[in-house]
Amino acid sequence: MNEIPYKIYLEEHEMPKQWYNVRADMKKKPAPILNPVTKEPITLEELSAIFCTELAKQELDDTTAYFDIPEEIRNFYKMYRPSPLVRAYCLEKKLGTPAHIYYKFEGNNTSGSHKLNSAIAQAYYAKQQGLKGVTTETGAGQWGTALSMACSYFDLDCQVYMVKCSYEQKPFRREVMRTYGAQVTPSPSMNTNVGRKINEEFPGTTGSLGCAISEAVEAAGNQEGYRYVLGSVLTQVLLHQSVIGLETKAALDKYGVKADMVIGCAGGGSNLGGLISPFAGEMLRGEAEYALIAVEPSSCPSLTRGKYAYDYCDTGKVCPLSKMYTLGSGYIPAASHAGGLRYHGMSSVVSELYDQGLMSARSVKQTEVFKAAQEFARIEGILPAPESSHAIKVAIDEAMKCKETGEAKNIVFGLTGTGYFDMFAYQRYNDGEMNDYVPTEEEIAKALAKLPEVE
Amino acid sequence: MNEIPYKIYLEEHEMPKQWYNVRADMKKKPAPILNPVTKEPITLEELSAIFCTELAKQELDDTTAYFDIPEEIRNFYKMYRPSPLVRAYCLEKKLGTPAHIYYKFEGNNTSGSHKLNSAIAQAYYAKQQGLKGVTTETGAGQWGTALSMACSYFDLDCQVYMVKCSYEQKPFRREVMRTYGAQVTPSPSMNTNVGRKINEEFPGTTGSLGCAISEAVEAAGNQEGYRYVLGSVLTQVLLHQSVIGLETKAALDKYGVKADMVIGCAGGGSNLGGLISPFAGEMLRGEAEYALIAVEPSSCPSLTRGKYAYDYCDTGKVCPLSKMYTLGSGYIPAASHAGGLRYHGMSSVVSELYDQGLMSARSVKQTEVFKAAQEFARIEGILPAPESSHAIKVAIDEAMKCKETGEAKNIVFGLTGTGYFDMFAYQRYNDGEMNDYVPTEEEIAKALAKLPEVE
Repeated sequence: MNEIPYKIYLEEHEMPKQWYNVRADMKKKPAPILNPVTKEPITLEELSAIFCTELAKQELDDTTAYFDIPEEIRNFYKMYRPSPLVRAYCLEKKLGTPAHIYYKFEGNNTSGSHKLNSAIAQAYYAKQQGLKGVTTETGAGQWGTALSMACSYFDLDCQVYMVKCSYEQKPFRREVMRTYGAQVTPSPSMNTNVGRKINEEFPGTTGSLGCAISEAVEAAGNQEGYRYVLGSVLTQVLLHQSVIGLETKAALDKYGVKADMVIGCAGGGSNLGGLISPFAGEMLRGEAEYALIAVEPSSCPSLTRGKYAYDYCDTGKVCPLSKMYTLGSGYIPAASHAGGLRYHGMSSVVSELYDQGLMSARSVKQTEVFKAAQEFARIEGILPAPESSHAIKVAIDEAMKCKETGEAKNIVFGLTGTGYFDMFAYQRYNDGEMNDYVPTEEEIAKALAKLPEVE
Repeated sequence: MNEIPYKIYLEEHEMPKQWYNVRADMKKKPAPILNPVTKEPITLEELSAIFCTELAKQELDDTTAYFDIPEEIRNFYKMYRPSPLVRAYCLEKKLGTPAHIYYKFEGNNTSGSHKLNSAIAQAYYAKQQGLKGVTTETGAGQWGTALSMACSYFDLDCQVYMVKCSYEQKPFRREVMRTYGAQVTPSPSMNTNVGRKINEEFPGTTGSLGCAISEAVEAAGNQEGYRYVLGSVLTQVLLHQSVIGLETKAALDKYGVKADMVIGCAGGGSNLGGLISPFAGEMLRGEAEYALIAVEPSSCPSLTRGKYAYDYCDTGKVCPLSKMYTLGSGYIPAASHAGGLRYHGMSSVVSELYDQGLMSARSVKQTEVFKAAQEFARIEGILPAPESSHAIKVAIDEAMKCKETGEAKNIVFGLTGTGYFDMFAYQRYNDGEMNDYVPTEEEIAKALAKLPEVE
């Protein structure tokens, strides 16, 4: 066996040629998504009015295990993939742990995160369908950037509704999107009924993700040749993101390394679901055992403190209902800088895997997360995104447990992105002005009391 | 021959184990640097008062062709190197050119540029010498970030004098440095005589690179166990940056590709000098011919419109004198967003290679550069630094010439970094508010009239 390099890069011919759909290996499938009006399982036809037809098919298909990745997408992937699986030699040494730590680094592209893996797929299918363009929302801005890049590549119009407070606080994210030719509109805007209504009811509001989603869905519906696209939560997104887990597994296999645990941060579940898919698949097929761990912010603890129930995916209640671990679509997380982890619910696939006991979950506090982020940055040289740093925190915790027990476990975690556009949050941390927030039982109960009734 | 992948990554064992000192192969050596007071060639002892002893030795050594890269530096390199040599298939296709375009991408690290290659070397030698810390200046912020990362790794104190206007306009760059534990001081400060004097003479001044250099040199001298370090211009820096060219050459050789031209942006010359070194070496030894091209901004055209003469490296005139292509140390470039290319002079090695006719130079206008940057970003997916985009501009020009002539030339250029912290400049471009500036003959003559007299 060769010595394991600092960075394991697959060769191009070793890159995945298919995405893996973990639902195919689940005996008990995730519950179907429902039409928000009839509350009946949504049909392909209904879903195709919102999403591109091919993506709607992927969304509903829970039996096909592998989907071919179209060649044009594989060629785009080659511009920034395979991403490296990094052996964290320096971190191991600094911690003095016998554990072997690996991280799959998805930040080496201009979107700064894994979001591009699904953005390019969604833009591709939109182009194939002959659409003019797509609409979407963005909060922290990673998804909007990724989609702008993907649309620019396929010469599609890209309309991004950006939560107003982010639009104002993150002008540079906005400029990256504009550089890629996207139209970026602060939400709530005056372009849509939803936006106008909210602006009227709450003058001066700085917006919310739920509102931006509703605006983007409405804007797609109002324009001939447009569809709405979304960067997380959906099972189609998890399908595309399986490329992360498949590459990780292939890189580990190449060096004969068996992971003991796989750790990912969890907001809507796009990264986590993609990373753990092939590992969960082996568990579902009875081929191997892994400790799969979701890490969420204590300010938005959908898995660890939410309820497994049908809920709305957006505030405007125009999107399908999904059964998921949720804090209620009316739950407003406290201002947290891990913008990408502030979603009230969790992907239905991840929720079901969690409910079946195939994975565990932990919530961690923001200041602990930034402490781990800073330590990691100084030792491994990569300034991580706040979201990704949730996984770093737990990976370090586990490595320190190994130090106590003397176990040389193989710890794998997902480093989903870089924090270059999150320096305002780092500044607060550097200045000692960052707070932790944990919702009270009452606050959570109050939000959960408003879940929709579904038979 | 295997098909050339989108990204050529060397294996770890193929990474350079030595830096290459092109001066060793030059029959006519670059002129010696001079003591600014005596105007005699500076001695090792004198230079060691400013720089770490080992770095001073490297600075003065023009006969040793190869320097071993210490193992600790090679291990650090492994965290972010080898950098990929990318075959720009998508750009070629979009341009419809028969040319084959390759770029060496140095932006995949948190400093965002190639600067880390020398920062880690300089920090290593400082640590070896038992120093407590180092001082430096930073303008655009890439060098300061790189040095902060390197010092953090070796647990050295890092004091950065940041040009005040950058300190204020680029708070996020500043926060990255702070996250790595550096002390960042806006310059001119009240910490030094130079700073206090300038603040007194020009109340409210936003500073300059020349002033920040003088402050950093003074601050190092005032503190026991400190030395000054610099990220460009110096021959030691070019030595460390030769890792770029050596990797590029090795990757091309691996696939049997002979470069026809090698293009780099040129400010102080650190990237360009490092990239072209091994190619220039082959030319000097009569082994091969290449078209080596330096690209500089038309607002600061030291090679194309400057004079080859001894000049001061800093405004405070405390640094050694160097013979170089210069616009005069009093030349104030117009406000340009390519912050890293605003130096009045050029590395003595690059200057001498240029003077001997081994390379050519072109100057390009800022708006053309951003146009090329945007085109590149949209096609190749990487948002380039304004500095790097100077090379992109000329690479595209050359590829379009090939389209006319039908020649399938191999065009190699250096993509030194990413533009994530330069979005203010992109915003101006996106808004159509960016101007070009070309100094008049009178302005250049006026600055050149003040060159120091040296026998």
